[in-house]
Amino acid sequence: MIAVLEPGCPMHQKAEVVRLIENEGLRAQVSELEHETLVGVIGQAGESLAARLEALPGVREVRLSAPPYPLTARAYHPADSRIRVAGVTFGGPEIVVAAGPCAVEDEEQLLSTARCVAAAGARLLRGGAFKPRSSPYSFQGLGEEGLRLLAAAREETGLAVVTEVLAPEDVELVARYADLLQVGARNMQNFRLLSAVGAQPRPVLLKRGLMATLDELLLAAEYVAAAGNPRVILCERGIRTFEPATRGTLDLSAVPVLKELTHLPVIVDPSHAAGRREWVPALARAALAAGADGLIVEVHPEPGRAVSDGRQSLTFAGFEAMMAELRRVAGALDRTLPGPAQAAPGGGA
Amino acid sequence: MIAVLEPGCPMHQKAEVVRLIENEGLRAQVSELEHETLVGVIGQAGESLAARLEALPGVREVRLSAPPYPLTARAYHPADSRIRVAGVTFGGPEIVVAAGPCAVEDEEQLLSTARCVAAAGARLLRGGAFKPRSSPYSFQGLGEEGLRLLAAAREETGLAVVTEVLAPEDVELVARYADLLQVGARNMQNFRLLSAVGAQPRPVLLKRGLMATLDELLLAAEYVAAAGNPRVILCERGIRTFEPATRGTLDLSAVPVLKELTHLPVIVDPSHAAGRREWVPALARAALAAGADGLIVEVHPEPGRAVSDGRQSLTFAGFEAMMAELRRVAGALDRTLPGPAQAAPGGGA
Amino acid sequence: MIAVLEPGCPMHQKAEVVRLIENEGLRAQVSELEHETLVGVIGQAGESLAARLEALPGVREVRLSAPPYPLTARAYHPADSRIRVAGVTFGGPEIVVAAGPCAVEDEEQLLSTARCVAAAGARLLRGGAFKPRSSPYSFQGLGEEGLRLLAAAREETGLAVVTEVLAPEDVELVARYADLLQVGARNMQNFRLLSAVGAQPRPVLLKRGLMATLDELLLAAEYVAAAGNPRVILCERGIRTFEPATRGTLDLSAVPVLKELTHLPVIVDPSHAAGRREWVPALARAALAAGADGLIVEVHPEPGRAVSDGRQSLTFAGFEAMMAELRRVAGALDRTLPGPAQAAPGGGA
Amino acid sequence: MIAVLEPGCPMHQKAEVVRLIENEGLRAQVSELEHETLVGVIGQAGESLAARLEALPGVREVRLSAPPYPLTARAYHPADSRIRVAGVTFGGPEIVVAAGPCAVEDEEQLLSTARCVAAAGARLLRGGAFKPRSSPYSFQGLGEEGLRLLAAAREETGLAVVTEVLAPEDVELVARYADLLQVGARNMQNFRLLSAVGAQPRPVLLKRGLMATLDELLLAAEYVAAAGNPRVILCERGIRTFEPATRGTLDLSAVPVLKELTHLPVIVDPSHAAGRREWVPALARAALAAGADGLIVEVHPEPGRAVSDGRQSLTFAGFEAMMAELRRVAGALDRTLPGPAQAAPGGGA
Repeated sequence: MIAVLEPGCPMHQKAEVVRLIENEGLRAQVSELEHETLVGVIGQAGESLAARLEALPGVREVRLSAPPYPLTARAYHPADSRIRVAGVTFGGPEIVVAAGPCAVEDEEQLLSTARCVAAAGARLLRGGAFKPRSSPYSFQGLGEEGLRLLAAAREETGLAVVTEVLAPEDVELVARYADLLQVGARNMQNFRLLSAVGAQPRPVLLKRGLMATLDELLLAAEYVAAAGNPRVILCERGIRTFEPATRGTLDLSAVPVLKELTHLPVIVDPSHAAGRREWVPALARAALAAGADGLIVEVHPEPGRAVSDGRQSLTFAGFEAMMAELRRVAGALDRTLPGPAQAAPGGGA
Repeated sequence: MIAVLEPGCPMHQKAEVVRLIENEGLRAQVSELEHETLVGVIGQAGESLAARLEALPGVREVRLSAPPYPLTARAYHPADSRIRVAGVTFGGPEIVVAAGPCAVEDEEQLLSTARCVAAAGARLLRGGAFKPRSSPYSFQGLGEEGLRLLAAAREETGLAVVTEVLAPEDVELVARYADLLQVGARNMQNFRLLSAVGAQPRPVLLKRGLMATLDELLLAAEYVAAAGNPRVILCERGIRTFEPATRGTLDLSAVPVLKELTHLPVIVDPSHAAGRREWVPALARAALAAGADGLIVEVHPEPGRAVSDGRQSLTFAGFEAMMAELRRVAGALDRTLPGPAQAAPGGGA
Repeated sequence: MIAVLEPGCPMHQKAEVVRLIENEGLRAQVSELEHETLVGVIGQAGESLAARLEALPGVREVRLSAPPYPLTARAYHPADSRIRVAGVTFGGPEIVVAAGPCAVEDEEQLLSTARCVAAAGARLLRGGAFKPRSSPYSFQGLGEEGLRLLAAAREETGLAVVTEVLAPEDVELVARYADLLQVGARNMQNFRLLSAVGAQPRPVLLKRGLMATLDELLLAAEYVAAAGNPRVILCERGIRTFEPATRGTLDLSAVPVLKELTHLPVIVDPSHAAGRREWVPALARAALAAGADGLIVEVHPEPGRAVSDGRQSLTFAGFEAMMAELRRVAGALDRTLPGPAQAAPGGGA
Repeated sequence: MIAVLEPGCPMHQKAEVVRLIENEGLRAQVSELEHETLVGVIGQAGESLAARLEALPGVREVRLSAPPYPLTARAYHPADSRIRVAGVTFGGPEIVVAAGPCAVEDEEQLLSTARCVAAAGARLLRGGAFKPRSSPYSFQGLGEEGLRLLAAAREETGLAVVTEVLAPEDVELVARYADLLQVGARNMQNFRLLSAVGAQPRPVLLKRGLMATLDELLLAAEYVAAAGNPRVILCERGIRTFEPATRGTLDLSAVPVLKELTHLPVIVDPSHAAGRREWVPALARAALAAGADGLIVEVHPEPGRAVSDGRQSLTFAGFEAMMAELRRVAGALDRTLPGPAQAAPGGGA
């Protein structure tokens, strides 16, 4: 249940609405939107509450069947949200590309990759320092040392840094180094983690779970927003189906469907879905054509020696060739993708 | 097991190979490819057969673990197959679009749609005369009357006709009217129907089953080819997954994967996958960008009144707008999509 | 739309109802049930038809939102249907077991299996003479010779025969030899085949498609019933999911759900779902406990040498051990499973 | 890679093995099993390591392709593990039933349910104090107050308590009140949480994720065991498929497959899979027949008023009737299910 307040409703009327809700033993979630104020009722409301709320001055209406993700729904925010990440804007005319290795392995691997992808037009560097691995015996990432290497690569190349955070207790540490905090597919319904990244100021890249419906993805984004951080970028990365040829089935329908349901930017990860580098460029092009605002792609200097995901990582040459193709597709869609020159503002590079 | 013969192997040696196989109580499938002749062994071969075949003159090698679809596999036919359908070529640089109503309903509906889609750049008219319907109580199509209306629309607009055939006993009838015979998703493993369309000369549009892996799709194509008709066009149309937002999940990874595995043309049906017309243009663009050779799309003069699939049918204006966008995307991919002028060679139109 | 007639409605009133429907260019499907007569309207009815039908004498009501499978729905037939197949009753207190090889290979294989399964308590012999195979190059079955061997095995053992029919043109031939006609999972939506088995008098075993919802299964059964043959037995055999350990995921929830939705008997095929013989007995026990009316199981004298499905076929000893366990489970459910003595009426029995 | 040490290998030899591994910059995971000691190598081992390990005294063999979950695999522990939870044994001849409401709502609701299920033969009380909810605006559970109510119900009825823990930071709190810590389906790959419950002494109930393969479930169990806690009970609770009739598709094949792959006890949750109480008893019976060691079931005094999952919760009468049926099935399987008398040690207990 959501109470929609009158535009310009004065503070003391808002307070009255919140007080009524809290007196019922419920919580009130106030969302100050551009054109209106919404008060979400959290908890099991009694039957008479809606009528009593509507009777209060300043309440325009009470929606019982409101979209269950008021902060995230386009219904409440018709305009596209633009989210700035260290000087790069997601959700505007520019296609934003994040690229880099699956896992940060060492300085040489990371820096060479960062230089390559920056030169080819990427705006963010990706790389895992904390890795969620199916097996406890697999490489779990370099931890803070990995974060330090990412920051050093940013220093040299000017790329912003996106990296995954695995647990609430790591949020503060990761946020110290990263420009964009990634919540991975396996954690899409780790609700504590969602609340934790919602309670800090860095923007959040939220990947769709392998098993998650689009409604569940939007509810997960709502957790982040409801905790105070509306700067969420959504990412389709392949769902689990019966088809064994690919690692996941990239659901590109998700792009237009999400664009209809939400005002948040939507990007696509073609690497994890494909599982093989040969198929990544075709899926990347298709993602742009479907309306994606950006991509996140795996690139490695020597994929055959990668600690993880080597099979799906592009080589440097492969990434450069793909970016050239993508630039043409972006143009046909009236969008831009920075060229080699524009994309390397960092240091002396 | 497949025996690969020497290039230029004389007829009497081929006959010897076939005789040896048949003497074992097995069947021999001879495929005369461009550069070599393959003899597939059909049935359960004894262990010694491979050695005895290899000992025959004219046999270059015997492949035990050959791709199980020799006529369809790119491994045997590195070059793309181009398939001509009434003057239109699938698998070449041109993006071929088939469009029209889900079901043929009446002359006015069909003709007005045919004129619209021809003017907008489509090259084929689609429309069901025999409809596979989940319920025995749903509209089953106009039958031969529908075929006659399709032929009349071709007469006027110059569009080629693609329409579905449901059963072996209808193949001869449908082939009399249609330029391209469609085998629908529900019949992808109706092996008798596959053999029947393989035993006649019209090219075949084979849609992937809702539950079919890509390997199974290629084996289904192999049924058609093994029966004598190698002119098969494959079509991805959405698979069944857990996601309820769309009618099916369009698996665009299928395009690059199929392009790697087979030399046959691959097209995409965005309408059945989306289930809602709003999402069709984005998926159509994405299909081209993924590498599809064409599209098959539902268009209806008044979608709200369609007998079936109205929710996913484009209006005339929607189709025209989509085609203009697709033309730009095709250009960025170095492919062509005929413009309004080129596409209406029929009659005086 | 379905018109429910008054009990005892005279023939001339029924004729009037049919005439009104047919005058609209629609078809009328008359179903004489135990307690009432239903007239289904097939085709797109105009808006006023319901009112005009209700105004006719003899019409009790018109249901617009009737379950879309009136002949199959329990809503119209509260009592369980019992279907007799050559002296065996499906849907009563007895658990009916069909067993035998995947494919009929030769006389010795089939006869020895028939003797074993009859002695252990099976009531039907299964075995494919026409095999639906993913590849055109796989063994396609012995055809009519296989049917003759099945009939001979029935002669000796007293087992009834169930075997698959692949195409409308084979129905008459297969029905000459078989007691129960099987429509396989890949043909569950081969609507012409459904109508063909519905137009002959043998009972039909209808297997759920690998990706068919339960509603679609019931609509497929309705095709058979609407063509005149209400004697349909449903079979759950595993659906396609992401889990690779088993060949299919046996959906035992289907048993109680179907029992609620339909009056038809429901049996389970644990062999195709499991894909490995080690897991078949556990799934067979579970199927009974879930409420299944019977089982269809693969058994082979030498599974390691089977032409197909050897990995999932039980040995003779395995089948006998499983039947002993099943007998105890059946008892705990107040159902019966014939013992060794009762089950071997063939030969001198 | 796993090094298997000689039985009775002395401590200084073990230390040498660990030292060699750690000198490579890798981690060594020592697992002291009943009959042998395993040393797992965590990280990317160089090629020569296996040979150098095998050359050490005390090393019997090095397995490169060992099952990736050595502590969990039956290959290493042929005998069934029995896990005691507050006087109840999972994995022995007794079928163990846990029952109770989805969420702890208040004292009266919980106590009345506890009394009912104890009297009917349940051995554990289930009930959520911390609830993982898709929406941030849904009831999130009573928190510690809910834990206190569970402990009070245990006091009165003698039932052991199982309840979910959502985050590493709650583990210590929940473990203070619960006898068995549940990790829910959405957290099955929350690796930090797995490690946290692995680092405390309470046994763990690990539910399979909605889209987790059985291999992934076993790797998740391995996380718990590798952190020091081998007392893990696995739970199948329905996977996500295309079928909409049920909330999840209960994969009962998982029971025999898991029993083959692992020595850990396996139980089944029929309530979340079914989504409707009418289907729960059939699935519960089927679970036992498939070989499950126990069940976890939702029961509520007034399902129509439940805060969550009311549609799938059994009434008291429904639970009692189901338990009587289950007792008979258990008997037919040579297993026991405590009767009403045995199961109600409360009061003076």
